Amino acid sequence: MSSPTATLLISCPDQQGLVAKFANFIYANGGNIIHADQHTDFAAELFLTRLEWQLTGFNLPREFIAPAFNAIAQPLNAKWELHFSDTVPRIAIWVSKQDHCLFDLIWRHRAKEFTAEIPLIISNHLPLQEVAEQFGIDYHYIPINKDNKLEQEAKQLKLLREYKIDLVVLAKYMQILSADFIAKFPQIINIHHSFLPAFVGANPYQKAFERGVKIIGATAHYVTSDLDAGPIIEQDVVRVSHRDEVEDLIRKGKDLERIVLARAVRSHLQNRVLVYGNRTVVFE
Amino acid sequence: MSSPTATLLISCPDQQGLVAKFANFIYANGGNIIHADQHTDFAAELFLTRLEWQLTGFNLPREFIAPAFNAIAQPLNAKWELHFSDTVPRIAIWVSKQDHCLFDLIWRHRAKEFTAEIPLIISNHLPLQEVAEQFGIDYHYIPINKDNKLEQEAKQLKLLREYKIDLVVLAKYMQILSADFIAKFPQIINIHHSFLPAFVGANPYQKAFERGVKIIGATAHYVTSDLDAGPIIEQDVVRVSHRDEVEDLIRKGKDLERIVLARAVRSHLQNRVLVYGNRTVVFE
Amino acid sequence: MSSPTATLLISCPDQQGLVAKFANFIYANGGNIIHADQHTDFAAELFLTRLEWQLTGFNLPREFIAPAFNAIAQPLNAKWELHFSDTVPRIAIWVSKQDHCLFDLIWRHRAKEFTAEIPLIISNHLPLQEVAEQFGIDYHYIPINKDNKLEQEAKQLKLLREYKIDLVVLAKYMQILSADFIAKFPQIINIHHSFLPAFVGANPYQKAFERGVKIIGATAHYVTSDLDAGPIIEQDVVRVSHRDEVEDLIRKGKDLERIVLARAVRSHLQNRVLVYGNRTVVFE
Amino acid sequence: MSSPTATLLISCPDQQGLVAKFANFIYANGGNIIHADQHTDFAAELFLTRLEWQLTGFNLPREFIAPAFNAIAQPLNAKWELHFSDTVPRIAIWVSKQDHCLFDLIWRHRAKEFTAEIPLIISNHLPLQEVAEQFGIDYHYIPINKDNKLEQEAKQLKLLREYKIDLVVLAKYMQILSADFIAKFPQIINIHHSFLPAFVGANPYQKAFERGVKIIGATAHYVTSDLDAGPIIEQDVVRVSHRDEVEDLIRKGKDLERIVLARAVRSHLQNRVLVYGNRTVVFE
Repeated sequence: MSSPTATLLISCPDQQGLVAKFANFIYANGGNIIHADQHTDFAAELFLTRLEWQLTGFNLPREFIAPAFNAIAQPLNAKWELHFSDTVPRIAIWVSKQDHCLFDLIWRHRAKEFTAEIPLIISNHLPLQEVAEQFGIDYHYIPINKDNKLEQEAKQLKLLREYKIDLVVLAKYMQILSADFIAKFPQIINIHHSFLPAFVGANPYQKAFERGVKIIGATAHYVTSDLDAGPIIEQDVVRVSHRDEVEDLIRKGKDLERIVLARAVRSHLQNRVLVYGNRTVVFE
Repeated sequence: MSSPTATLLISCPDQQGLVAKFANFIYANGGNIIHADQHTDFAAELFLTRLEWQLTGFNLPREFIAPAFNAIAQPLNAKWELHFSDTVPRIAIWVSKQDHCLFDLIWRHRAKEFTAEIPLIISNHLPLQEVAEQFGIDYHYIPINKDNKLEQEAKQLKLLREYKIDLVVLAKYMQILSADFIAKFPQIINIHHSFLPAFVGANPYQKAFERGVKIIGATAHYVTSDLDAGPIIEQDVVRVSHRDEVEDLIRKGKDLERIVLARAVRSHLQNRVLVYGNRTVVFE
Repeated sequence: MSSPTATLLISCPDQQGLVAKFANFIYANGGNIIHADQHTDFAAELFLTRLEWQLTGFNLPREFIAPAFNAIAQPLNAKWELHFSDTVPRIAIWVSKQDHCLFDLIWRHRAKEFTAEIPLIISNHLPLQEVAEQFGIDYHYIPINKDNKLEQEAKQLKLLREYKIDLVVLAKYMQILSADFIAKFPQIINIHHSFLPAFVGANPYQKAFERGVKIIGATAHYVTSDLDAGPIIEQDVVRVSHRDEVEDLIRKGKDLERIVLARAVRSHLQNRVLVYGNRTVVFE
Repeated sequence: MSSPTATLLISCPDQQGLVAKFANFIYANGGNIIHADQHTDFAAELFLTRLEWQLTGFNLPREFIAPAFNAIAQPLNAKWELHFSDTVPRIAIWVSKQDHCLFDLIWRHRAKEFTAEIPLIISNHLPLQEVAEQFGIDYHYIPINKDNKLEQEAKQLKLLREYKIDLVVLAKYMQILSADFIAKFPQIINIHHSFLPAFVGANPYQKAFERGVKIIGATAHYVTSDLDAGPIIEQDVVRVSHRDEVEDLIRKGKDLERIVLARAVRSHLQNRVLVYGNRTVVFE
């Protein structure tokens, strides 16, 4: 499987013959499908699929795949994305003061759990600059307050462009982004430290403690202009008890946050996530 | 362990020597403690404990235990309950149309997973009458609508008194009880088909589907006049995916509801649950 | 989706074009695929797929589907099964003295969690006869000892034929079947009360207690002549602690056994399970 | 709670009055108990308890606590340990080539999830020397082969003594220690990458894949001379499916290993683990 692959992510109004049509497109051009996943949302009458095939032996040159597939997709009103496995996406990690998600993403990157470059860390605080230096990643300190937000967001956007960033990962960034920013750069994954939609907003562990829940969670989701309401990619939970103080919830939650964020980032980078409406299909 | 036991559930402003004082009370009277659990809520400055000891060999006659312990408890401002393991509590199960929690509680009762009598089922619908008859339990059909609620609640209360009910279990009763009713009969456990506080109120599975969550849950809690906001006794969750339609969430949720409700009822009946504020300590 | 469907389960040496070929077969005959799942085991060089399509509008009459598909399958060396959703499979439940899995399967059957008929219960003990009668299912008492095993198995086989049974569910049957019996009737699902391959054989909860594990499990698997070593369909676990005696493990384990067995039976009945080697693919 | 505390871990043949006697010892000397946990193993007729109290205000000087308590413990045939929260234990982490558990323990140490010093890393390989240097920890390279094992173990023991090590953590050390070594230094926690007792020994993920399990696990345990058979401290699991290759099991397993090992080390360092026979009580 060392051959580079192409991946099509397609969502399309449901109709007869879609599996055959898409598979034929690849087969007719000499492609060897290594993963094919489908899902039909019957309520939404939507067909969603992910097709990954080996480029070695595929008769269409890369630059012709998109136009050729478009000829099939357009009459079906399909939306689609095409990705190549040897195009390495570039990530910016945004942090505040907490280091657990940052460390974890860096460790997984070194362990080759996902394929990406991490050239940029942005933070509204200074403490993690040292970590960035330790691992040779550029660190830009852009402090945010209520007066300078728009102007600082302009700086952030400029950096994302300069560094050719494909995905922003909010690894406990703890700031709300403006709707305008999100519109200009919509590829953002956030980790929220609660089992959404419970405990939206600030201090979820404190709220969870006060509510006396017996299980806490963490949620990775795409960021939209609605606070903590974007499409959920991954969630996980851990059991707590009356013996756990707020600080125990925070400690236990960190393990959740690390794992949930990492799974979501990995699924996204492997082009396994299809968003439609406010929902995701995550092909595993 | 066939000897009957006494159990004290105590909550008390925290201070030095409480473990010793309570244990001494039992030891000095010849009691053999078989379970002793403590918890200190440092924020609330509250000490909570559960002590269970064998009555065989205990020098105080049963009727003197309460007054004797009160002499210790009063100067400490302790709240406490005393239970005997051979006093069998009486449960009324309230249902609507769904049978899974009812069947499950009846099966567990037969399997001796908890000690109780179940002499009464109350329902606002007729379909489960047949189940009640099959297992020889009285079934009272008390239909509720917005006009007759108060008057029907009076009938329900009367039945609880007649049947000498100690605990009401809302096993998917699907009706909101009035604050007045709850004030008059506060020992009520409800199963809510979501991971509270997410999806309070009606149709939680539909809401969970629309939100696109990756995990669903169920919550057993004591009923208070705030809808779905009473002290949580037990919660559990199960993973779902984009492949699960609303009807799959409902099906998977039923297994959660059965187990979570059963655990909560069992803990309550074994006098393992201590409520303080809107929280519970569940001694396991 | 009330239209009846056909389902093909196919395993086939991997090669280019399989997704297209199988999808084309259905599409070319006017079929509307509602579920398509594939998996490639790269180590085994095996392609496994499940295709389900609506029969309404499908141009091939039912009796011609198998021969028509065979013409495609044979040159590919594919193994395959064809099922129709309106052919209701017939289950025999085999029990010993414990009732929890039996009750659970009966309840799920009534709740329409799976489509099947349950005309027959076989047991080596008498206590559950009453349950069978309560739900109107024939109960055959076939006591087993080391001397009469072969002869009793002959009776069991005869019953399976008379009742036209498609699937035997060992719902805590607690007896080992002979290799000869399994060869003659290989469609058997067993629930083993441990997290296999830990604690093969008798008394797994006792063994789990002695080993001091912190989690217990249950395993549903197809029965082969190797004890507790057949292909695993489903497993689940629950946390335990030092507070749990053997009897608590047994009680907690019952909930696992019920759920794990039910999930496995449902997946099997929906033709979602493909066995190859000693492994299963369970398409969800 | 910033006051230093003392902790007694006691196991004792069960008899009447133990809770009272031990609590009285602390109360009579002016101690304020902040955690009291008990467990009775009725089969073993053993009483196990953990008592933690504040030293501020305690009338007995530290050096007299042990002899004073011994006067109580001896007639009861109790085994006990006394620990002070401000005595910082010293850990040696032993690694091979994999870095995930090492990184994780270092991160948790920096995050103050547990109180300890980590002055020493021992490895039979060189690759992680760089990590040790990055975090300023001494790294000793002691390669092991079948011929030099005893002699190298002598070097290891010498290092443990020189560095005044209290606990060895085998963080994927991948070597079997001799019975002699374990006898001389018995405080060793190992992380095994399977849900013990399934898949004892080498290559558990490969074995798990071949067996076709649907859940994998990890186990932290004290090391004894029986391979992978020592008292279990903590276990956890994660669901896998047919889509997971061996390398996916390894990747998913790493997250388990990190968390399970960290929980076990933390419980041990907080003196929450009591070993008796081949079992543990972990007071939470």
